[in-house]
Amino acid sequence: VKACGLIVEYNPFHYGHVHHIQAAKEKSGANIIIAVMSGSFLQRGEPAIIDKFHRTRAALNSGVDIVLELPYPFALQSSELFAKGAVDTLAQIGVDSICFGSEMGKANPFIQAAYKLQTTKETFDDVIRTYLDQGYSFPQASNKAYDEIGIHHLDMTKPNNILGLSYTKTMMQDDYSHIEPLTIPRIHNEYHQEKIQHSIASATSIRKELHTNGLTEKALSTLPKQSVDQLQHYKKTANIWHQWELYFPFLHYKVMTMEKQQLASIFSVDEGLENRIKQTASTATSFADWLEKIKTKRYTQTRLQRMFVHILTNTSKEEMYQQIHTDSVPYLRLLGMSKQGRAYINKYKKHISIPIITNLKKDQIHEMMLDERATHIYYTILYPEKRIILRKQEFTGPIFSSDYP
Amino acid sequence: VKACGLIVEYNPFHYGHVHHIQAAKEKSGANIIIAVMSGSFLQRGEPAIIDKFHRTRAALNSGVDIVLELPYPFALQSSELFAKGAVDTLAQIGVDSICFGSEMGKANPFIQAAYKLQTTKETFDDVIRTYLDQGYSFPQASNKAYDEIGIHHLDMTKPNNILGLSYTKTMMQDDYSHIEPLTIPRIHNEYHQEKIQHSIASATSIRKELHTNGLTEKALSTLPKQSVDQLQHYKKTANIWHQWELYFPFLHYKVMTMEKQQLASIFSVDEGLENRIKQTASTATSFADWLEKIKTKRYTQTRLQRMFVHILTNTSKEEMYQQIHTDSVPYLRLLGMSKQGRAYINKYKKHISIPIITNLKKDQIHEMMLDERATHIYYTILYPEKRIILRKQEFTGPIFSSDYP
Repeated sequence: VKACGLIVEYNPFHYGHVHHIQAAKEKSGANIIIAVMSGSFLQRGEPAIIDKFHRTRAALNSGVDIVLELPYPFALQSSELFAKGAVDTLAQIGVDSICFGSEMGKANPFIQAAYKLQTTKETFDDVIRTYLDQGYSFPQASNKAYDEIGIHHLDMTKPNNILGLSYTKTMMQDDYSHIEPLTIPRIHNEYHQEKIQHSIASATSIRKELHTNGLTEKALSTLPKQSVDQLQHYKKTANIWHQWELYFPFLHYKVMTMEKQQLASIFSVDEGLENRIKQTASTATSFADWLEKIKTKRYTQTRLQRMFVHILTNTSKEEMYQQIHTDSVPYLRLLGMSKQGRAYINKYKKHISIPIITNLKKDQIHEMMLDERATHIYYTILYPEKRIILRKQEFTGPIFSSDYP
Repeated sequence: VKACGLIVEYNPFHYGHVHHIQAAKEKSGANIIIAVMSGSFLQRGEPAIIDKFHRTRAALNSGVDIVLELPYPFALQSSELFAKGAVDTLAQIGVDSICFGSEMGKANPFIQAAYKLQTTKETFDDVIRTYLDQGYSFPQASNKAYDEIGIHHLDMTKPNNILGLSYTKTMMQDDYSHIEPLTIPRIHNEYHQEKIQHSIASATSIRKELHTNGLTEKALSTLPKQSVDQLQHYKKTANIWHQWELYFPFLHYKVMTMEKQQLASIFSVDEGLENRIKQTASTATSFADWLEKIKTKRYTQTRLQRMFVHILTNTSKEEMYQQIHTDSVPYLRLLGMSKQGRAYINKYKKHISIPIITNLKKDQIHEMMLDERATHIYYTILYPEKRIILRKQEFTGPIFSSDYP
């Protein structure tokens, strides 16, 4: 048995993801595909368009064998800790390789760059700090730093390459050196050269189309049936697809109830950001407006969006530090599996040293699980009856691929 | 100049209140009427139907000369501390008498009862404790205690008598002994014997009619024009009239973001109530449903409603204790005044030893003012544009009676 790991968000699941699964199988020669997926809120600091359970079903129905939830403390982080949590989760479940999409689709530049970063870590950090002090934004400063230490083959302005490099760097650490980094080229907004010609669009443009116009022909051309089914089923059950603006009243309310020092205790509210948040709160008319009012060159939009998620979920620095500063992820949350996935877990589980959580039995929920709180809050924008129905999924999992829709 | 104080909520202002103002003037012989009014949230643990500014205008247009806001830490309390805050506020502004409505309309039974309570305080408390331990509810236990110490002339099952006795008890303390307690009989759901025949209904039944059917003939028959104008103007500005159910999603969200020990730090979340709150939260489908699920014999509905307001406004035990455990209210918040009211304040202000706050200049807002935070949160259910407009009133006050509507 050979297992290949994927690091995903499926927001929503589209043809690019179908391609990723197939290409990963071919490239790795694996017969088991294991995805570690962000849960309710995603790395860019946004709520997932549909919940983790519906995204899990789309994945299982598209060839993924096991879906694990990336714990919240790692999912809502910049690339370094995100990669650490994702790679560690996949290592715990025993993958032989991890396959990610990248611009060029070649692993060597990533391995070389990761090696270079390892040997020049101090120079790299110094250079970044110097440029930050000169007033450059973090992305600008790190681009210049990559350049100075001689990483030219990777375009480090591309988010996928940033993540890919972080995965590769993590996999070069001793604990993970048995895992092979694989990469496949990303296919852009063009026709995918297969028997069936599908449109591969970015998840961002698909979400925009869905939120603005719904499941139009244009949206449908980018989404496999397995995903459309889940989007429709979710809409029928929850009444909505999630987006930040729906959380704005709650975020605003939350900030109104907090004094500055309480705000400053929230993870990633650093360097006096609590003052800017308070100053801009009373005149913000929407989430987009608030972001616009609060942003500075120093902080990227995703950095601020993640911060707003932590405020929304009331996640303190203390809670996050407890979980980040450990050697491994604290548990494996199993969202779903295929028949083969189940057989794999039954065989492999004696090698797993951390708890496997298949569903939240009521007496088992502990405060450590920030995912659980985040998911509760994810559903908060729904009508109470809808919220209660969807919330039950936490207790009835894991999902089997035969459970349909 | 003689000033008479009223302790009010005006939720909403109705013909009973018009009668109260006129009768207080007659009974006291005062030429200045000063009302201390609860602000955004009221003693029974409910949001006011329209905001404090609009209720202030209705009062000023109906013969009240000065409206002061009862600070939040006293407004959201059971009768004892509510009375303490209200009487102290009126004492600070220099009233000669305080006139309250009661069932019988005679001051003597209150004075006698207050005197009896003072001399038998320990017995009274012991009796209550004994009955509470036997499983009686607090209202039942205190009724039995009143009976045992010989208070028979006052029906202590009537909320107005409970409050009236608390006012009288407070006024018997040394600091307030120069203030004369006056009472007028409450006029019930029957025709008021004046030239114009108006219907005097309870504020509760008026609110019910307004929320259910709007400004119907029935509602209009109970409300003077000054009040109708403000209700209409508020609806036009804010789109809504306030009620608990509109806050339910925010309250629920708030509880979801809090761990048990955080909940227990909120004022009045005592004796393990945090467990009941958490247990009942996930299945509550409305505010009324939540109250129903959480209630026990031990806690009255108003006690629980006040607790929910404190959770909604994130008011901690620490914040409340700081303000309650002082000798006087911390400031006078002046919401509005008539020409005579202004003259009175100008003349009397040299005798006032605490700050008079006429509006919140931006640099003047301090964390001490829980009112300010509560008002922010009061508006949280409005569309952002509406919220921003109404919020501005905090900075442009006080209101003069000539400003109309």
